[in-house]
Amino acid sequence: MHETNVEVLVSEVGPRDGLQNARGVMSTAHKLQWIRAAAACGIREVEVCSFVPPTLVKGMADAAEVVREARTIDGLTVAALAPNLRGAENAMAAGVHKVTLPVSVSEKHSLANVRKTRAQMIEESRCVCALRDAQAPDNRPLIEGGLSTAFGCSIEGKISEDDVVRMAEALVDAGCDEVALADTAGYANPVQIKRVIARVRDAIGARLSGVHLHNTLGLGLANAMAAYEAGIRTFDASQAGLGGCPFAPGASGNIVTEDLVFMFESAGISTGIDLEGLLAIRKILRDALPEDELYGYVPDAGLPPWFTQAATTTRSLP
Amino acid sequence: MHETNVEVLVSEVGPRDGLQNARGVMSTAHKLQWIRAAAACGIREVEVCSFVPPTLVKGMADAAEVVREARTIDGLTVAALAPNLRGAENAMAAGVHKVTLPVSVSEKHSLANVRKTRAQMIEESRCVCALRDAQAPDNRPLIEGGLSTAFGCSIEGKISEDDVVRMAEALVDAGCDEVALADTAGYANPVQIKRVIARVRDAIGARLSGVHLHNTLGLGLANAMAAYEAGIRTFDASQAGLGGCPFAPGASGNIVTEDLVFMFESAGISTGIDLEGLLAIRKILRDALPEDELYGYVPDAGLPPWFTQAATTTRSLP
Repeated sequence: MHETNVEVLVSEVGPRDGLQNARGVMSTAHKLQWIRAAAACGIREVEVCSFVPPTLVKGMADAAEVVREARTIDGLTVAALAPNLRGAENAMAAGVHKVTLPVSVSEKHSLANVRKTRAQMIEESRCVCALRDAQAPDNRPLIEGGLSTAFGCSIEGKISEDDVVRMAEALVDAGCDEVALADTAGYANPVQIKRVIARVRDAIGARLSGVHLHNTLGLGLANAMAAYEAGIRTFDASQAGLGGCPFAPGASGNIVTEDLVFMFESAGISTGIDLEGLLAIRKILRDALPEDELYGYVPDAGLPPWFTQAATTTRSLP
Repeated sequence: MHETNVEVLVSEVGPRDGLQNARGVMSTAHKLQWIRAAAACGIREVEVCSFVPPTLVKGMADAAEVVREARTIDGLTVAALAPNLRGAENAMAAGVHKVTLPVSVSEKHSLANVRKTRAQMIEESRCVCALRDAQAPDNRPLIEGGLSTAFGCSIEGKISEDDVVRMAEALVDAGCDEVALADTAGYANPVQIKRVIARVRDAIGARLSGVHLHNTLGLGLANAMAAYEAGIRTFDASQAGLGGCPFAPGASGNIVTEDLVFMFESAGISTGIDLEGLLAIRKILRDALPEDELYGYVPDAGLPPWFTQAATTTRSLP
């Protein structure tokens, strides 16, 4: 791969967050076609699945198989979500490079989402980190604590910024390599984004890794740019904005990868991702999920004729 | 009206820019119902129409009547677009407080849009300013030069930033009270927004008044926040994102007033606009334009239960 001056890492979470909330169930073959095509366009990290009981989340029964196949893609960081120790064990057994633990800042969301209190989730994170440390050195994944509802909660409403800082510190204390801030409900605004990022960085420094933003109220890209200006360089996004948000009827889900990459690239900030190739992947999604709506402004309006990538990009591999 | 710490002016341009590109034609009665309801929510400036030959733009034949009625609304700045001296004469005769002249930075867009070169439009602006100066002192409108295609053109592609600065200087030299920067095609990005605003302000200082943004590629709100951070305090927007963009199929038009107000208010930046009242106006739009799509994330997802206005807002008048 040829990456020149790549400045931000766009982590594609569609195969996990998108498919978890999609109308249709994507076949394993389509998932792998998508992940391979994304990697070929220059996407360097994909959250490929979540390790949850298939009875709870449809479409994740093939998690281990997807991880094993994705691991064969040269240069790709294979990430997975695991809501508990059991899931993290399975993720590590399958060979992921990175495990993301969803840890809510909101106590009520924590109970609703994983049926554990925040304190129990911190302890669960400690156990996952101990499990990581027990792995052979060449098989030790990164553990990311993903702080859900960090900017607001659809159950509790406003979230205390002191709590966000405390939970970030607790995750680092538990052994997490990285902490990401997730706007689970899509409630954040750009001013808040900058303020919370500054406070969390003051507390945990470079362990603050990235942001996970939703576009429920249309502020997703404004929030992403605010996070960039606040020093964040890793951004979760989902192709076609797949997923929707169960707490916001009519709203789209994650920020749309295609639009995020366009914003950065048109602003001269290199993602290393070939945007035309990325747009072409939507054909795979259309075939694989015929009943799901595919979102995106750039895909709808088309790339402007003047568009050029910010820097020499990764060329699509055959 | 009770306005506390209002920090930004949101100028509603839907009755002009929105209706100019809408599918349906709105009745005069519905236009006035909309404008009155907007003013009652705290909108302090509305671009109510354009003074163009009715044969060229459908739905603007009632321009003078709309201006005269809107002038009776207490505290409202009544603005209108006029593409030439003839239109500006009519606008002043009808009694507008503000005339916006669309002046393209792109020579080709200028010829396509108003059938005049840029140099001819500067001269036209000079004539309009002379006409303003010839009015009785209590009937002298503000003249705003609106620099179209300032961030990119659907015909010429990239636009020289030197040209933007030169055209802004030329408009001030021609006598314009204010110069606004318009992203006519919706091509701007936040980094460019900040850079161009800084350059134009260096050249013309406080005569730089506001920005007019479109959401073609989904960056509208990110660009608005960038403009705010660059010191801009006046923002055009259109309720329901009415208008569409003739050069970008499938894309929406102006940035959506409801979403823009939500972004500012949720970030603690007061607009003086009662957002619930603003959302209720969509019923008028739905009735008046049954065939047009009404855009907006906040309207679709609903106001989050935790939402509070940034400051004491103008209460809806009876």
